[in-house]
Amino acid sequence: MSVKANVIDISQRSGISTAPLDGSEKVYVRGSRDDIRVPFREIKLTDTPNRTPGLPGTPNAPVLVYDTSGIYTDPLVEIDIEKGLPAIRADWITDRNDTEQLSAFSSQFTRDQDEKAFDIPLFSHRRLPRRAKPGKNVTQMHYARRGIITPEMEYIAIRESMGRAAMHDAGTLPDGNASHITAEYVRQEVAEGRAIIPANINHPEAEPMIIGRNFLVKINANIGNSATTSSIEEEVEKMVWSTRWGGDTVMDLSTGKHIHQTREWIIRNSPVPIGTVPLYQALEKVKGVAEDLSWEVFRDTLIEQAEQGVSYFTIHAGVRLAHIPLSVDRITGIVSRGGSIMAAWCLAHHQESFLYTHFEEICEIMKAYDVSFSLGDGLRPGCQADANDAAQFAELRTLGELTEIAWRHDVQVMVEGPGHVPMHKIKENMDLQLDVCKEAPFYTLGPLVTDIAPGYDHITSGIGAAMIGWFGTAMLCYVTPKEHLGLPNKDDVKTGIITYKIAAHAADLAKGHPGAQVRDDAISKARFEFRWEDQFNLGLDPDTARAFHDETLPQPKAKEAHFCSMCGPKFCSMKISHDVKQAFDEKSAEFKAAGSKIYQEV
Amino acid sequence: MSVKANVIDISQRSGISTAPLDGSEKVYVRGSRDDIRVPFREIKLTDTPNRTPGLPGTPNAPVLVYDTSGIYTDPLVEIDIEKGLPAIRADWITDRNDTEQLSAFSSQFTRDQDEKAFDIPLFSHRRLPRRAKPGKNVTQMHYARRGIITPEMEYIAIRESMGRAAMHDAGTLPDGNASHITAEYVRQEVAEGRAIIPANINHPEAEPMIIGRNFLVKINANIGNSATTSSIEEEVEKMVWSTRWGGDTVMDLSTGKHIHQTREWIIRNSPVPIGTVPLYQALEKVKGVAEDLSWEVFRDTLIEQAEQGVSYFTIHAGVRLAHIPLSVDRITGIVSRGGSIMAAWCLAHHQESFLYTHFEEICEIMKAYDVSFSLGDGLRPGCQADANDAAQFAELRTLGELTEIAWRHDVQVMVEGPGHVPMHKIKENMDLQLDVCKEAPFYTLGPLVTDIAPGYDHITSGIGAAMIGWFGTAMLCYVTPKEHLGLPNKDDVKTGIITYKIAAHAADLAKGHPGAQVRDDAISKARFEFRWEDQFNLGLDPDTARAFHDETLPQPKAKEAHFCSMCGPKFCSMKISHDVKQAFDEKSAEFKAAGSKIYQEV
Repeated sequence: MSVKANVIDISQRSGISTAPLDGSEKVYVRGSRDDIRVPFREIKLTDTPNRTPGLPGTPNAPVLVYDTSGIYTDPLVEIDIEKGLPAIRADWITDRNDTEQLSAFSSQFTRDQDEKAFDIPLFSHRRLPRRAKPGKNVTQMHYARRGIITPEMEYIAIRESMGRAAMHDAGTLPDGNASHITAEYVRQEVAEGRAIIPANINHPEAEPMIIGRNFLVKINANIGNSATTSSIEEEVEKMVWSTRWGGDTVMDLSTGKHIHQTREWIIRNSPVPIGTVPLYQALEKVKGVAEDLSWEVFRDTLIEQAEQGVSYFTIHAGVRLAHIPLSVDRITGIVSRGGSIMAAWCLAHHQESFLYTHFEEICEIMKAYDVSFSLGDGLRPGCQADANDAAQFAELRTLGELTEIAWRHDVQVMVEGPGHVPMHKIKENMDLQLDVCKEAPFYTLGPLVTDIAPGYDHITSGIGAAMIGWFGTAMLCYVTPKEHLGLPNKDDVKTGIITYKIAAHAADLAKGHPGAQVRDDAISKARFEFRWEDQFNLGLDPDTARAFHDETLPQPKAKEAHFCSMCGPKFCSMKISHDVKQAFDEKSAEFKAAGSKIYQEV
Repeated sequence: MSVKANVIDISQRSGISTAPLDGSEKVYVRGSRDDIRVPFREIKLTDTPNRTPGLPGTPNAPVLVYDTSGIYTDPLVEIDIEKGLPAIRADWITDRNDTEQLSAFSSQFTRDQDEKAFDIPLFSHRRLPRRAKPGKNVTQMHYARRGIITPEMEYIAIRESMGRAAMHDAGTLPDGNASHITAEYVRQEVAEGRAIIPANINHPEAEPMIIGRNFLVKINANIGNSATTSSIEEEVEKMVWSTRWGGDTVMDLSTGKHIHQTREWIIRNSPVPIGTVPLYQALEKVKGVAEDLSWEVFRDTLIEQAEQGVSYFTIHAGVRLAHIPLSVDRITGIVSRGGSIMAAWCLAHHQESFLYTHFEEICEIMKAYDVSFSLGDGLRPGCQADANDAAQFAELRTLGELTEIAWRHDVQVMVEGPGHVPMHKIKENMDLQLDVCKEAPFYTLGPLVTDIAPGYDHITSGIGAAMIGWFGTAMLCYVTPKEHLGLPNKDDVKTGIITYKIAAHAADLAKGHPGAQVRDDAISKARFEFRWEDQFNLGLDPDTARAFHDETLPQPKAKEAHFCSMCGPKFCSMKISHDVKQAFDEKSAEFKAAGSKIYQEV
């Protein structure tokens, strides 16, 4: 049986990457109702060859892995970005009977946009937005605290249980209760604020996922349109490409033209939650003049984006007027865009930040759509010297206060973290965050453990990301090789994502998550048994692994060879090690046959 | 003043990479005698621009960095690989009056080779070997324990003090005693066995360096000729390329043809100590049949290589017969080539390893040339599942015993470590090694913190390397992206080295080494001040940083721009942050002028 039976050629449907990864097949695990169908990537493995030529080998069970790529990698589904993805959560949302579809968009900006003509294609299957009925709170945290297990929670329980690289035995598919990750456990974690489910009711296309330190560590990829006008297809492809390689969420950080229209295309086609920094668009609306920002412009932007379906907002409400003096003697000042914008506003008006003073009103908006907070770290350090300083930690304490305010509204919260931090100062960040933010999930950018490697900051930050993930960070925001230097291209995005999948998985291993090591064990067994194709396919990036192997040994036969180009047959430790094992087994048999005398006589 | 005044065009002299890195100049710091001239790379910086246009800027002191590249990056020196490098240590060695030049090579193999004809060019300026006079011990440890400070130790003290990225003030060059790294301190560390100076008396061309956890963390790059015959020039260039980017030592792991002759070319042209695994060549001599190995063949190989100038030998003497059963139930068995060869030998003969039984005789050879032990970890784990198991730790304890035996001979020792280890099990490795090996330097391969990313194992291992470096590992053996898949090309070697320079430097920062952060601070200041050229040149890889920047903004003016392509001028946090700082300074002035009332009234 060929491992490629269900795999179509790698191809691009109208510029969008589809087709499964090599050796993989999309499978779905059903929950308690028909419309809970949780996707996984099943990696099929070849048999372990029999040492006696001619005899049949021993089958290796396929490995199931968590799959963020949506239906783009399901060859049985036709993709049409003009229509967007199916709204898999639509019934769950309407069944709750606590939301209503509006007859018009609530945001003035959105309504104004609808009057205009654009030189880009518009998404034509746009839905009218939903909002909580008056007096209702529609956050997953609100349900969780009232003891309600939502379909989203059940979906996540299945996804997390099986997605821990569990070996897939076709006969005994767990039903979501096969590990300690039950739907009830998910509910409890969300109720306690230790985890969030970013799931705006206006993004029913998204496949539910959870961010919390007792679940698999997640990664975020940033995308955004650039000055050079790229086509809508390119923008959608950036998102698809990011999720193809493992992005769990995508932040759309666009700052250019047509932000609103581009975002519509992205959200309608995204299988993962989309996050934004609404301040960026608000600043565009006031033509880039920070002091012209106002609560009114910002408020309308929140509503505009909430009604499109953004699932989490970075809000830099922790940059208070009193914190700014703490940052002025730093080597790199304020390196967060949002942070510097708010600092400029505070100083220009000599007033407390409107994000801070209007925080409860923001909560009211969030809970009407179930948008989660990602409390921004506007004062994060931009270099080793500024790490863990007074400005950073003063802001973190404010974020802790804001977390508790949001929780009083049952609004979900995660908290953003640094940045640039040397290894010995990383744990202090995590410990303080857990303490002052009462275990709300931490979401960090790296941190970079040195500043001296521009061009390699996916690596400097991947080191810090793995460590802080182990210490308890729930989601890691990726960094690409172009960080500090320029805009990432498609290869850079992939490199950033794979690096962060490494960091996240290394953290899962170090935390001892049940099942996390199954994939490592499977690939190691394949390696020891010279099952080259399995080794490639079990890797995070089968294409690159295969290409690297073929660079030295391109012949098809080399993929059946019991050695590789590194050492050649004579020096292959794996090959010799097999011989050693066999010799040992024979000695053991002799030993037993001889009456089990002391094996080693000296 | 142009920063490129002393830089000649990047060019290749007869296929060998020469020319300084961009923006850098080779400088030498003199010690107590004229022939102690310690090389550094001085990175020249531009001025901090004055905020008032037209007024002069503020100069930034150049940054001195540790330089492993030898005279290849000194444009004033002519390179001729036919002649080899100057023997800078020759007088120091002869002045000690405890060695003698032999009239012939002691190794039978070497003498046999000299009778043969070869189809490759031979190094024509070969010297006859030196050896300790009868009864003499010529190791740096032997001198150190007798209270002798050698020129090598003084050289290292200067190199380590200044090489901590110290700011270079032309008026106050330290003399080697300006930090706590004095020559006497170096002597003590070597005497105690906490550090080694790999410095074979037959490699007088090498620039002295030290491996110990109270010094800068070092990295090793592996090279080796492959089956496809590469030219001598290519082999030498591999070594030069490795040291150009920061390789502190180079291991020649050749297993193909003409190992002896190629090694001669490499050593005669190498500014860094060369390490080998003599077992590989010994196995070649018995045509690849492990059971045909013998102490006699191995002994002659040690002498052959010692007389050529190899400075450290990996000796897998810890793979004892009794340890082999501990490895048979592993997922990946024995993954060390040396380990698997010795295990095969032990089982075939059902005898204790000849490396173990002849260990004291090996010590006698080592001390006659000052070859250091790198006690091989033949039973290191090859996957996460096998990490920290009984086989690995049984061997480590044996390596501890062997360390003490070597020390009784005043032979220098470092100890090799894993391998594949999840993050939470890394520290146990370091702690146990320090304990059972009595603080002898640890030299690890990674470790890789997950097995699931073939094609990215420089990253999976760079994470573990940074952590174990922080915990106390003295030297990190690099891993390239081709690990597990194929032979690294030149780009892979560079990527591996830069990744490991990141890991080593991150460890130096985390250990709080004095001065280690100077380079981070300088690059961060350059970043904040939009001094793009300085930012590139202060990085580990100026070429890649510049190329990445130019990919998005190729115009020369972009390198003077107060923003970059990532955010553009309107969203540049650095730019806004400068404005914030200025506004704050103005507010502060107002505040003081108004009689210093409470700044923030709310």
